[in-house]
Amino acid sequence: MFRNNYDNDSVTFSPQGRIFQVEYAAEAVKQGSVVVGIASKTHAVLVAIKRNAEELSSYQKKLFPIDEHVGIAIAGLTSDARVLSNFMKQQCLGHRLTYGRNMPVRSLVDMIGSKAQVNTQHYGKRPYGVGLLVAGVDESGPHLFEFQPSGMTEEMQAFAIGARSQMARTYLEKNLDAFAACGREELVRHGLKALKESLVQDRELTVENTSVGIAGVSKAEDGSTKVEPFKVFDGQDVNAWIESVADNKEGGAAEGEGMDVDG
Amino acid sequence: MFRNNYDNDSVTFSPQGRIFQVEYAAEAVKQGSVVVGIASKTHAVLVAIKRNAEELSSYQKKLFPIDEHVGIAIAGLTSDARVLSNFMKQQCLGHRLTYGRNMPVRSLVDMIGSKAQVNTQHYGKRPYGVGLLVAGVDESGPHLFEFQPSGMTEEMQAFAIGARSQMARTYLEKNLDAFAACGREELVRHGLKALKESLVQDRELTVENTSVGIAGVSKAEDGSTKVEPFKVFDGQDVNAWIESVADNKEGGAAEGEGMDVDG
Amino acid sequence: MFRNNYDNDSVTFSPQGRIFQVEYAAEAVKQGSVVVGIASKTHAVLVAIKRNAEELSSYQKKLFPIDEHVGIAIAGLTSDARVLSNFMKQQCLGHRLTYGRNMPVRSLVDMIGSKAQVNTQHYGKRPYGVGLLVAGVDESGPHLFEFQPSGMTEEMQAFAIGARSQMARTYLEKNLDAFAACGREELVRHGLKALKESLVQDRELTVENTSVGIAGVSKAEDGSTKVEPFKVFDGQDVNAWIESVADNKEGGAAEGEGMDVDG
Amino acid sequence: MFRNNYDNDSVTFSPQGRIFQVEYAAEAVKQGSVVVGIASKTHAVLVAIKRNAEELSSYQKKLFPIDEHVGIAIAGLTSDARVLSNFMKQQCLGHRLTYGRNMPVRSLVDMIGSKAQVNTQHYGKRPYGVGLLVAGVDESGPHLFEFQPSGMTEEMQAFAIGARSQMARTYLEKNLDAFAACGREELVRHGLKALKESLVQDRELTVENTSVGIAGVSKAEDGSTKVEPFKVFDGQDVNAWIESVADNKEGGAAEGEGMDVDG
Amino acid sequence: MFRNNYDNDSVTFSPQGRIFQVEYAAEAVKQGSVVVGIASKTHAVLVAIKRNAEELSSYQKKLFPIDEHVGIAIAGLTSDARVLSNFMKQQCLGHRLTYGRNMPVRSLVDMIGSKAQVNTQHYGKRPYGVGLLVAGVDESGPHLFEFQPSGMTEEMQAFAIGARSQMARTYLEKNLDAFAACGREELVRHGLKALKESLVQDRELTVENTSVGIAGVSKAEDGSTKVEPFKVFDGQDVNAWIESVADNKEGGAAEGEGMDVDG
Amino acid sequence: MFRNNYDNDSVTFSPQGRIFQVEYAAEAVKQGSVVVGIASKTHAVLVAIKRNAEELSSYQKKLFPIDEHVGIAIAGLTSDARVLSNFMKQQCLGHRLTYGRNMPVRSLVDMIGSKAQVNTQHYGKRPYGVGLLVAGVDESGPHLFEFQPSGMTEEMQAFAIGARSQMARTYLEKNLDAFAACGREELVRHGLKALKESLVQDRELTVENTSVGIAGVSKAEDGSTKVEPFKVFDGQDVNAWIESVADNKEGGAAEGEGMDVDG
Amino acid sequence: MFRNNYDNDSVTFSPQGRIFQVEYAAEAVKQGSVVVGIASKTHAVLVAIKRNAEELSSYQKKLFPIDEHVGIAIAGLTSDARVLSNFMKQQCLGHRLTYGRNMPVRSLVDMIGSKAQVNTQHYGKRPYGVGLLVAGVDESGPHLFEFQPSGMTEEMQAFAIGARSQMARTYLEKNLDAFAACGREELVRHGLKALKESLVQDRELTVENTSVGIAGVSKAEDGSTKVEPFKVFDGQDVNAWIESVADNKEGGAAEGEGMDVDG
Repeated sequence: MFRNNYDNDSVTFSPQGRIFQVEYAAEAVKQGSVVVGIASKTHAVLVAIKRNAEELSSYQKKLFPIDEHVGIAIAGLTSDARVLSNFMKQQCLGHRLTYGRNMPVRSLVDMIGSKAQVNTQHYGKRPYGVGLLVAGVDESGPHLFEFQPSGMTEEMQAFAIGARSQMARTYLEKNLDAFAACGREELVRHGLKALKESLVQDRELTVENTSVGIAGVSKAEDGSTKVEPFKVFDGQDVNAWIESVADNKEGGAAEGEGMDVDG
Repeated sequence: MFRNNYDNDSVTFSPQGRIFQVEYAAEAVKQGSVVVGIASKTHAVLVAIKRNAEELSSYQKKLFPIDEHVGIAIAGLTSDARVLSNFMKQQCLGHRLTYGRNMPVRSLVDMIGSKAQVNTQHYGKRPYGVGLLVAGVDESGPHLFEFQPSGMTEEMQAFAIGARSQMARTYLEKNLDAFAACGREELVRHGLKALKESLVQDRELTVENTSVGIAGVSKAEDGSTKVEPFKVFDGQDVNAWIESVADNKEGGAAEGEGMDVDG
Repeated sequence: MFRNNYDNDSVTFSPQGRIFQVEYAAEAVKQGSVVVGIASKTHAVLVAIKRNAEELSSYQKKLFPIDEHVGIAIAGLTSDARVLSNFMKQQCLGHRLTYGRNMPVRSLVDMIGSKAQVNTQHYGKRPYGVGLLVAGVDESGPHLFEFQPSGMTEEMQAFAIGARSQMARTYLEKNLDAFAACGREELVRHGLKALKESLVQDRELTVENTSVGIAGVSKAEDGSTKVEPFKVFDGQDVNAWIESVADNKEGGAAEGEGMDVDG
Repeated sequence: MFRNNYDNDSVTFSPQGRIFQVEYAAEAVKQGSVVVGIASKTHAVLVAIKRNAEELSSYQKKLFPIDEHVGIAIAGLTSDARVLSNFMKQQCLGHRLTYGRNMPVRSLVDMIGSKAQVNTQHYGKRPYGVGLLVAGVDESGPHLFEFQPSGMTEEMQAFAIGARSQMARTYLEKNLDAFAACGREELVRHGLKALKESLVQDRELTVENTSVGIAGVSKAEDGSTKVEPFKVFDGQDVNAWIESVADNKEGGAAEGEGMDVDG
Repeated sequence: MFRNNYDNDSVTFSPQGRIFQVEYAAEAVKQGSVVVGIASKTHAVLVAIKRNAEELSSYQKKLFPIDEHVGIAIAGLTSDARVLSNFMKQQCLGHRLTYGRNMPVRSLVDMIGSKAQVNTQHYGKRPYGVGLLVAGVDESGPHLFEFQPSGMTEEMQAFAIGARSQMARTYLEKNLDAFAACGREELVRHGLKALKESLVQDRELTVENTSVGIAGVSKAEDGSTKVEPFKVFDGQDVNAWIESVADNKEGGAAEGEGMDVDG
Repeated sequence: MFRNNYDNDSVTFSPQGRIFQVEYAAEAVKQGSVVVGIASKTHAVLVAIKRNAEELSSYQKKLFPIDEHVGIAIAGLTSDARVLSNFMKQQCLGHRLTYGRNMPVRSLVDMIGSKAQVNTQHYGKRPYGVGLLVAGVDESGPHLFEFQPSGMTEEMQAFAIGARSQMARTYLEKNLDAFAACGREELVRHGLKALKESLVQDRELTVENTSVGIAGVSKAEDGSTKVEPFKVFDGQDVNAWIESVADNKEGGAAEGEGMDVDG
Repeated sequence: MFRNNYDNDSVTFSPQGRIFQVEYAAEAVKQGSVVVGIASKTHAVLVAIKRNAEELSSYQKKLFPIDEHVGIAIAGLTSDARVLSNFMKQQCLGHRLTYGRNMPVRSLVDMIGSKAQVNTQHYGKRPYGVGLLVAGVDESGPHLFEFQPSGMTEEMQAFAIGARSQMARTYLEKNLDAFAACGREELVRHGLKALKESLVQDRELTVENTSVGIAGVSKAEDGSTKVEPFKVFDGQDVNAWIESVADNKEGGAAEGEGMDVDG
């Protein structure tokens, strides 16, 4: 029997220089339901499929506001996500109390990256078993970041993590060039279409299982910048978006539409 | 012989991204006798089967008041439950001393979730071997939460944990739509009926082995809100409820009844 | 050869959710000689068989006073019992110094339960290898508690732990209904009879090997409550009780007798 | 090959509830040369065979004074005994400085018992590999205690530990009834006779290899109590006692004799 | 099966005096994309191939400014690099606050070397899985250092680390003599040519995947020294350099050119 | 293959009550070159064979002065000896600063014994791999002690430790009775003769490889005591002694001689 | 397969009393390039072959000044050497600040010996994998010490450590008698000749790969002592020495020469 002697803790390198426990933690991310994020020049959106493991429960939340300008989508161990989420909230709060303004999204992401790295280099801990997409706006505009259990963080234009997320990523890659110029509504529709690619055969996007998170900036006519704080939309609030990407409307979404006011 | 090399502590991921020790701890929950919780728009109730492993003992308590507005039902290792219960009592007390009002139920549940998560990510500890249903009322109304050994917490409309709890859950799922509108008495009866589904063949609900816990809010005629603090009912106090769900009365319980004053 | 991979420490769950080291610690309790406890409405008594492993030693003590209102009977590792006993004495002393009254028995029992639970959830310690029966009186009357190595504590009406204690428990179960109304003397005799059931074939209760511990409350004629502090009786002090349950007197003990002043 | 999976540290119970490392430590006691202790109503004596592993060394000491009223005999790891002995000296000194009187022997013995128990319940330590007989006098008269590596301590009337000590114990059991009334000299002779039983075939008690330790109390004619502090006798000081138990005098020792002034 | 018993942690020497875990960490460096550094008498340059593991991401950064006078190129675990990078930034900042001038590059490199060595000599940590090229200018001129996971640091004239870096090193060795006299532009072109040697068959240097970092000093006509702070060039900023080393221009780059103002 | 499961650390007893790691440490003592010590009524001497593993080194020191009244001879790990030696020097210095007089030799030896015992009872340390002979004079006269890795210390009249020391011990045993009365010179000669017994076939005592250490007391004619501080003699200083025990003089040394002024 | 159960950490003795991890660390020293040291009555010199593992690097330094009066040559893990080197620099600095004079070389060497010993007796650390030659001058003249990973330190007249150092040692042994009287230049030439013995077949001493370090004292004509601080010579500064030991000059070097002013 093959016996891997190097995969029992995160402080042991394999002879090839790999740290298997970190790679296994990445597998935990793939157990979570898929989440998608896309950033344009004006908005960053997160869309997610909520699961309800038990019919009796509310659907499990996948999107969480962190601060008024930033939110996260999670895939993997929910309990681990809570730890990181609480940490991010405290950092944002502390930053605003100290500096009087929102923490830049990249700084925030760097902090959880550093925090997570510690767990990959000290015996007796384990890597966080959760991946995040972090979406937010700051002085340099909208941003989307991916966070991995390794502590690796990377700015992305669009991305998807979680179960069957490869299909969503394929959609995103195909439409990558279009995203930068997309408006708010259009961006959400792209996100939902990507999400649909990752659905298993007989599942549909519904108002119960779909969450949308949006943060954005828009220039007012007088040239000033108007920030749309990060907000999560659930239930009936996502109905119009879901209908707009229903199969009979496919194709139309990629075009600019009149209702896309933020575009 | 199959040998699992990844299931000896909670800081090791399996190649599939699972943490077996956390899953095994969840098995300990299934060793406990069944508890059921249901929340309506006005009440949150917990019902439980008490076991007495030894005839000589009192029946083991399954329901515990935590604070005046919240209580828990436990399934699994009683000693672990006590640790969490003491922790919750202290948090509630501290919150009231600091802020002059009851701790929101979700905040309380988040705290034990975070506390439990720590034991899943540090070597030398083990996950708590107990599951909880937390029922309470706060400014946003009645709530029911499930707590798992992983530190996962989730708001539920109705749920059951413990031995043979699947049968109770099936009952709850079938009647899920009715719960929101149920009054106090009706909710208890639904709980007891769910409980009966999980009883082994020849056991019955009795005044000795049945516990009921109730917290609720009701609007007085003048529009003010009246809170019914969390209280555990045992012995003769549960007799009427038990009789009302005796088999010859089956069917009737699902209908609103005059005695259901809180409905 | 069967190899149990989950029974080497108390921070590892088995795939079935069991913690074997805690169960093995419970086996240590069964190595101790039997102790019996019974509580009535007015008294709590402990009776025990003392062993002398070496003829040259005094008999090993089995009953220990903790505070003026509470005492314990032990079965298992005597050295572990001393640790718990010292802890209890300090808690009782501290409580009286702080509050000016005896610590409620349940509070005291909860404290050793919590203390023992810690040893079942931290690597590098082991569960206490001793079981206790705790008997005492407080403002709510007489109480009998069982303490297990798991940290589990439970109020009992009557119980027996230690070697061959099942036979004693069977006697106790048969006579359970009678205990509540028993007076002091009658309660002791029930305890001794239960003890006799657990004796090996050719052993007898003697003044050398039998210990009796009693705490009680009685109402004086003026309605005031008179407390009988916990006291351990050995040697000639237990002679009358032993003779009263000698085989030729069997049957008579179950009846109320004139000498039973506390009844 | 039989493989014991539960005997590598003192924080692991075997499935039968045993802690093998504690039992193995008890084996270390059996490696030490035999020591005997006897207590009467007026005296407590320790007698010991000294070994000299190397002819070039002095004989290894077996008896050590702890305080003016108490001394110990050791069997097992001498280095471990020194740790306990130093601890006991400090405790006695501290007690006298604080309270102005000698520490009761039982209190002293309880303290080393508690100290030793810690080493049986924490990973990374090991039980003390030494057994002690503690002899002393305090306000309640002469006392003899046995201390075991488990932390178990027990008051004894007479006892022997160390290599081949069973033979000495058999002698002590046979003569147990006589000890309480024995005087100082008689008690020493009983001790030496017990010691002789444990000697290997061709060894003899000599002034080189025999140690005697005595503490006692005697009532003066005016009713006051006179304490004989614990003192160790070696060399020519033990000659008379050795000669008095030489084989040709056997039998006579058991009788009271005129020279037994303290009787 | 060959079983290496000495390669599970960095505190165990093999019988040949090797520390395998440190060697395995060095393998992680080889997983990173190639980076090249060259120092002349006036400049130190870093050039790197950026990878984008996911098409959706920006290209992963390979060059990072540390302080105004120094920057790094990384190959290996990005999360580990961030830890070292943050540490270096803090050291540089602290040095300038304390001494009012830039930290000498060698001192900075010594500090990360010492920091990294600790992880190779303490159980429970692991070596950093990243290699660095550190380029900077200080009072003694331009410098290039290599940092290895072992904590080994070494000043180099030119070097390349990462995947397929051997090919780049071969180019550098061949042209080693020319570097000292190279000007800024020429040095960059040498770096890019070395980089091209390490490219896999069908990849090309592009403005998307190529980064250049430069620090330098130049003597002004009045004899004063002008420092060019470390700066990273990406995108269109590197276009001219890339075109200048396109295959049809090969050969010309080695000659001094008029546009090489810093030469 | 025989596999000893109990010999990997010093906190594990074997089923026979042995601690193998302590016994293995004692083997390290046997790797050291032989040292011999003898005490008379007036002097304590240490003699040693120095090794030079490398011809290029000075001979390795075997005798070390600790304080003006005491010195040690070492056999085993020199690095471990330095730790103990430094500790002893500090203790002696501290004692003299505090009490204004030399530390009694036995107290000093007890301190290293206690220090060494700690390493035999705590996981993560190892016993000291060195044996010592400690020679000194204090108010009670000359003393010789042996220190073993177990922490065991014992006063000896004469002793030898290290490689092939059994032969030296045999010589010492044969002449044991003569030592007490020996004078300074005679005692040294006995030591050297014992040393010669342990030499391998073709080695000789030389001024290069022989060390002698002496401490002593002598009564002046006016009855006052004159102390000869501990001093190590090497090189030409030991020549006369070596010649006096050359083979052709054998036999004479055992007789008292006129030059033995201290006798 | 032979399986050594005692060589995984430095706190485990083998049954023969060996500590294998310390021996394996000594193997790491043999991986380093050879260094040679010689001390005369007036000078202490270190000579070393520098390696450049990579042609692109400068040659790796082998000689390091520690303080004005002392320097070291290293063989083994360079990162470990840096730790010891930094420690020595701090000790020397601290000593001079405290006492106003240079630390004696032996004291300095004792300190790293003690520091290194700690790593051989505590679990979770590893021995330093580097050997040192320490050369310096202090009030007692020039000194040369060897430091081994075991913490063992020894004063040497001449020594060589590192790869193929046995050949150098053979040269040194042959010429040992001549060193004491050698002057500065002669001593360096002896060192270089020894070094050449250890070179692999086709390598030569060159100005690139050879380092020389010298410290010395000389008596001025007025009897005062003039100290030559420790200085490392590289490059053209060593050219004359290298030429003086070129093969065609062999033989001459051993003779005193006029240019040897310090002789």
